[in-house]
Amino acid sequence: MTEAAFLAALRALPLHPGARALRDDVAVVAGLVVTTDTLVEGVHFLADDPPADVAWKLLAVNLSDLAAKGAVPEGVLLNYPLSTAGWDATFVEGFGVALAAFGCSLIGGDTVSLPPGVPRVLTVTALGRDAVAPARSGARAGDGLWVTGTIGDAGAGLRIARGESGPDPLLAAYHRPRPRLAEGRALAPVVAAMCDVSDGLLIDAGRMAAASGLAVTVELDTVPLSPALRAFDPDPLAAATAGDDYELLFALAEGLTPPVAATRVGGFSVGAGLTLNDSGRPVPLPARLGWEHGAS
Amino acid sequence: MTEAAFLAALRALPLHPGARALRDDVAVVAGLVVTTDTLVEGVHFLADDPPADVAWKLLAVNLSDLAAKGAVPEGVLLNYPLSTAGWDATFVEGFGVALAAFGCSLIGGDTVSLPPGVPRVLTVTALGRDAVAPARSGARAGDGLWVTGTIGDAGAGLRIARGESGPDPLLAAYHRPRPRLAEGRALAPVVAAMCDVSDGLLIDAGRMAAASGLAVTVELDTVPLSPALRAFDPDPLAAATAGDDYELLFALAEGLTPPVAATRVGGFSVGAGLTLNDSGRPVPLPARLGWEHGAS
Repeated sequence: MTEAAFLAALRALPLHPGARALRDDVAVVAGLVVTTDTLVEGVHFLADDPPADVAWKLLAVNLSDLAAKGAVPEGVLLNYPLSTAGWDATFVEGFGVALAAFGCSLIGGDTVSLPPGVPRVLTVTALGRDAVAPARSGARAGDGLWVTGTIGDAGAGLRIARGESGPDPLLAAYHRPRPRLAEGRALAPVVAAMCDVSDGLLIDAGRMAAASGLAVTVELDTVPLSPALRAFDPDPLAAATAGDDYELLFALAEGLTPPVAATRVGGFSVGAGLTLNDSGRPVPLPARLGWEHGAS
Repeated sequence: MTEAAFLAALRALPLHPGARALRDDVAVVAGLVVTTDTLVEGVHFLADDPPADVAWKLLAVNLSDLAAKGAVPEGVLLNYPLSTAGWDATFVEGFGVALAAFGCSLIGGDTVSLPPGVPRVLTVTALGRDAVAPARSGARAGDGLWVTGTIGDAGAGLRIARGESGPDPLLAAYHRPRPRLAEGRALAPVVAAMCDVSDGLLIDAGRMAAASGLAVTVELDTVPLSPALRAFDPDPLAAATAGDDYELLFALAEGLTPPVAATRVGGFSVGAGLTLNDSGRPVPLPARLGWEHGAS
């Protein structure tokens, strides 16, 4: 079953009032923001990725969803498949480093044994507090579309992890994404809608527009690229469809200035669908806008 | 790495104040009880188990941990590996039936794609409210050890699912465990310690004693067996080591009567370790007390 069909089937079940109809990356329960993400070896990370990097990424991708709601991490649960002593020990050590880096703590979890040879499947569930929790669906016609940081570094890092040669900072962007917790706290009270860029700038912008019942235009030539990425591959379309950025994408009323460093990359209007401009002129959409696996 | 070694390593990480040092089946965060359990195909359920039964069990084993803390289910998150349309559709339908049966709702989750041929790994995280949340570690010397319902039916059901012939009620006990939510609500205010019997009566009794810094004696001839189990296999030792019962095991002060139907199966005393009696006389412990995989 496709993810879309599965989500449609889930929406027919009894849903919690805070579930946001399963159309956001988080739910809000008893004042807590709740989110969960699963990483699969061979799908979301490579079998030979260092275990400490997998631990970092597993935590970071979950905290990124908290960041997009302006939440302070309260703690996380870890569902972990036991394997070799070396991998497990390095993973735990790395998980501790990541917890400390983000001021987070472990709440609990579960360990399981996987049959031999089975790829690792790891889940973290994160709880956050003090959230403003802007929805993905709150954009209004006329709002600008903005993004923090730079886009495409992690996608380039994945290519480097797979064997291309390229600089360490790009590889680090793939292995060690930094959830924009402080930026999210500052942005949440002023934005109309916010999410993180996990599956690709274009696909996530399109989802925000669809959830808000609007059209969105992305100005390709304004997509912020790092100097390292410009040297590695300056194609903004590759950057905008690569995913794993974990920057914050948000809708902001015209005339407002974001309280953190960010780049305006487009805007929302009445209608539906995604339009891509380059130097102000429409260009065809690529066949693939980003990753279709992914979060609910 | 073994589960015990992994848990020891996790305990060196920053722990949430509500994590109960990872020595209980739940944590308590901002007034909510939080628990999570992962089921693996080929480990916790059989590849040819009906998907609706897997859905029921996945929900039930998590709600059983809430039951042991006297909590009311607030809702659950589901981490789900997409597979075939038929399996997925039947799973979702069954998950909805189970949610309705337990008065629970879906909060959110995540879907992933597993590489072809990989066993399913499914996680539910459950949140509960209004809990008294008795710890596993609260037993006192002199307390009686009690258990709700009957023990061993699910273990016999597993044997039937694997090919032995036996009656439907035992198979149903394996496929469709019923979390003791109402019993847990009634018991939580009066017990000294409580957990559910997931890995086996003996191993879970031993863990409660260890967590409480006490010795425990189980009177084998008092372990409650259903009429169906007595006809299938009357060995109380098989029943007490089989696991998957999801009955409530609790410590109750001498002289108190439980507010729900339950059977006294032993008691706590100063010291350490598990003693097994049959008709009042010590008998050797079996080599295997229950399932060592399992919850944290």
